[in-house]
Amino acid sequence: MKQFEDYKYIDGGVCAAEGFSANGINAGINPDKSKNDLGAIASISPCKTACVYTQNKVKGAPIIVTKENLQKSNNISQAVIVNSKNANTCNANGIEIAEQSCELLAKYLGIPAEYVIVASTGVIGQPMSIEPFKNGMEELTYGLSKDGNRKAVNAIMTTDTKEKEVAVEFEIEGRRVHMGGMGKGSGMIHPNMATTLNFITTDVNISAELLQKAVDELVQITYNCLTIDGDTSTNDMLSVMANGMAGNKEITVENGDYKKVKQALYIVMMNLTRMLAADGEGANKLIEVNCVNAPTLEIAKAVAKSVAGSSLVKCAVNGCDANWGRILCAIGYTDAEFDISVLDVSYSSANGTVSVFENGAGVDFSEELATNILSAEEVYINIDMHQGSEKITAWGCDLTHEYVSINADYRS
Amino acid sequence: MKQFEDYKYIDGGVCAAEGFSANGINAGINPDKSKNDLGAIASISPCKTACVYTQNKVKGAPIIVTKENLQKSNNISQAVIVNSKNANTCNANGIEIAEQSCELLAKYLGIPAEYVIVASTGVIGQPMSIEPFKNGMEELTYGLSKDGNRKAVNAIMTTDTKEKEVAVEFEIEGRRVHMGGMGKGSGMIHPNMATTLNFITTDVNISAELLQKAVDELVQITYNCLTIDGDTSTNDMLSVMANGMAGNKEITVENGDYKKVKQALYIVMMNLTRMLAADGEGANKLIEVNCVNAPTLEIAKAVAKSVAGSSLVKCAVNGCDANWGRILCAIGYTDAEFDISVLDVSYSSANGTVSVFENGAGVDFSEELATNILSAEEVYINIDMHQGSEKITAWGCDLTHEYVSINADYRS
Repeated sequence: MKQFEDYKYIDGGVCAAEGFSANGINAGINPDKSKNDLGAIASISPCKTACVYTQNKVKGAPIIVTKENLQKSNNISQAVIVNSKNANTCNANGIEIAEQSCELLAKYLGIPAEYVIVASTGVIGQPMSIEPFKNGMEELTYGLSKDGNRKAVNAIMTTDTKEKEVAVEFEIEGRRVHMGGMGKGSGMIHPNMATTLNFITTDVNISAELLQKAVDELVQITYNCLTIDGDTSTNDMLSVMANGMAGNKEITVENGDYKKVKQALYIVMMNLTRMLAADGEGANKLIEVNCVNAPTLEIAKAVAKSVAGSSLVKCAVNGCDANWGRILCAIGYTDAEFDISVLDVSYSSANGTVSVFENGAGVDFSEELATNILSAEEVYINIDMHQGSEKITAWGCDLTHEYVSINADYRS
Repeated sequence: MKQFEDYKYIDGGVCAAEGFSANGINAGINPDKSKNDLGAIASISPCKTACVYTQNKVKGAPIIVTKENLQKSNNISQAVIVNSKNANTCNANGIEIAEQSCELLAKYLGIPAEYVIVASTGVIGQPMSIEPFKNGMEELTYGLSKDGNRKAVNAIMTTDTKEKEVAVEFEIEGRRVHMGGMGKGSGMIHPNMATTLNFITTDVNISAELLQKAVDELVQITYNCLTIDGDTSTNDMLSVMANGMAGNKEITVENGDYKKVKQALYIVMMNLTRMLAADGEGANKLIEVNCVNAPTLEIAKAVAKSVAGSSLVKCAVNGCDANWGRILCAIGYTDAEFDISVLDVSYSSANGTVSVFENGAGVDFSEELATNILSAEEVYINIDMHQGSEKITAWGCDLTHEYVSINADYRS
């Protein structure tokens, strides 16, 4: 993982921050008893909360209920209830189930129901029952603990092959503060506002307004620069809960402390985004597209995402084939105005760097070197636009036989 | 193929119209000698010509040269020279090669060089030599014949598995007139203005202006409603050549005869589009998305293309899995404003029809029937938006292991 001065990676995920506990159980939603399907995160005190949601016009019932809860509570939350295996979307009783699950968790924790964030992931359009929530809530809440983060991560995984969590420690007013998060992928990922399910916790004391501002800005250069398959999910959500237990003076203006918190949030969000890309459905490789010297940030993002999202580029990386014409093709169909004739393009990885396109034309290169570079686990496609000073990174993964296999029989 | 009153399907493709001949040879661009790589179409008299081109900012050299030629000639053309295996794009000498190949063909046919339409398809960014054109031009032009259409089709195929040509006969002023065309796919197909390489010929007498108007309108509801993999090619082109040999009075206003010609053009363009979709790289099935009762044509098109282009929908059709939640998801992330709560969705095919979503919610259906419907070679996804009267059809194909295999090692 990339290192950042003054920030130290630590264990603990969503439980790394003071006052947060988590748990995950199999409540019978997933017939595979070795897999958790119901998770919870709880803070011992109410949290200032920022959320971003999918912009898909079809919205999962939990998205609607969480929005309503945070509106009622004026952006205060204290706990999360989340299930996998059923997206609770496009079914008859979704809203009711989502509301009831909030009430159940709230009752066990002794908090108001509107302090609960609810989320679901899984198959769309399936009938959903409240019974697993009713039957499992006692075990779930009684088992909440400081080291329950991995059980909670396990509860949100669907086709994910790896647990995705990250946490950092840093200082504010000489106090050690913490921020950590967990996320799940790994298909139907082409975020537009937020992505997938991601929960971040921190013990820093910060106003909900500033927290939301930081999240809104950072989501544009992290989750929204990720594409696995071009499909924007109906249930995407990212929540950040700050319980203030670090004891610092509440951050209410964009001062130096705000910048520190925002940087911590960037590190957590960026790392979760990279983990989601690397574990995209069927993926063998992480593809990172670095676009520099662009005329505007929007153009940089459009170009980088166009390349990261190209099925042909993804297949070529899968096959270690330096077929750079497909990169140029994807740059060329980006919906933005810029000069294509001055671009440079190169591939790089832990195995080296190879330039393939300079000043708008292909250059001779060693196919052997290029194949070797492309055989790495993380492959970087570097685009220098030579027409400005903006830069951005987009993340994606290769397109494989496994992606097709997973999605040709997902429901079964 | 769908039947249209007053129009009769006939053989002959681009040679079906009076006065057109064609040929295709292996000129050594493709090392596989059993495959043609150089094709030509010629008319015995100059043709009014309409063209549409890719909107990719990276444009193949042949696109640039064809545009220049038609500008010089005031939209008159008389012949086409086209090669496969090398896209003549993003290389050092592309323009020069494209111009020289026009001059070579023009010399052998005794026509002005600006009467030649030039096109290339294949790998981007490869050096190209004029030698195969020089060496092959005599054989190519001497062999031009009335039954050379299939040799010409063979010359433009790349990863295509099937020849794509269609022709119709109809009447104007009591005269039998003809229109036919050929096209090639089958990857990097997500047309934006035109698609792939498509050549249409007709013996009708019509002004270039009206021909262009008809093409511009029809491309929006045919080629531009096709997506194979979301990648808009750098070399897309469609040309329509009308030599007037049917002897009808030149059509210069939008009268009944114009409507007849436009309908013929629709039949040819729509059938070529369907053939391209059905033979998409790796495809086992044609997917046709029919969106009806939409508030506007633009919304109908955006919704239908969003569904046809969804990797998850394509995989589910591949696996005969009626996972309709993915269709709703793709409808939901369409970039357009409409009411999602009143939609109906059904699957149909030669094996029957099954409704899966009505009035904004899932309905019970027989999985067995749905699987049977989805196992057909042509699968229809039907969306009734219930909020207007516009309709459109979009075409695509399923996403298969073979797509990944083809594109992980295309260059080799």
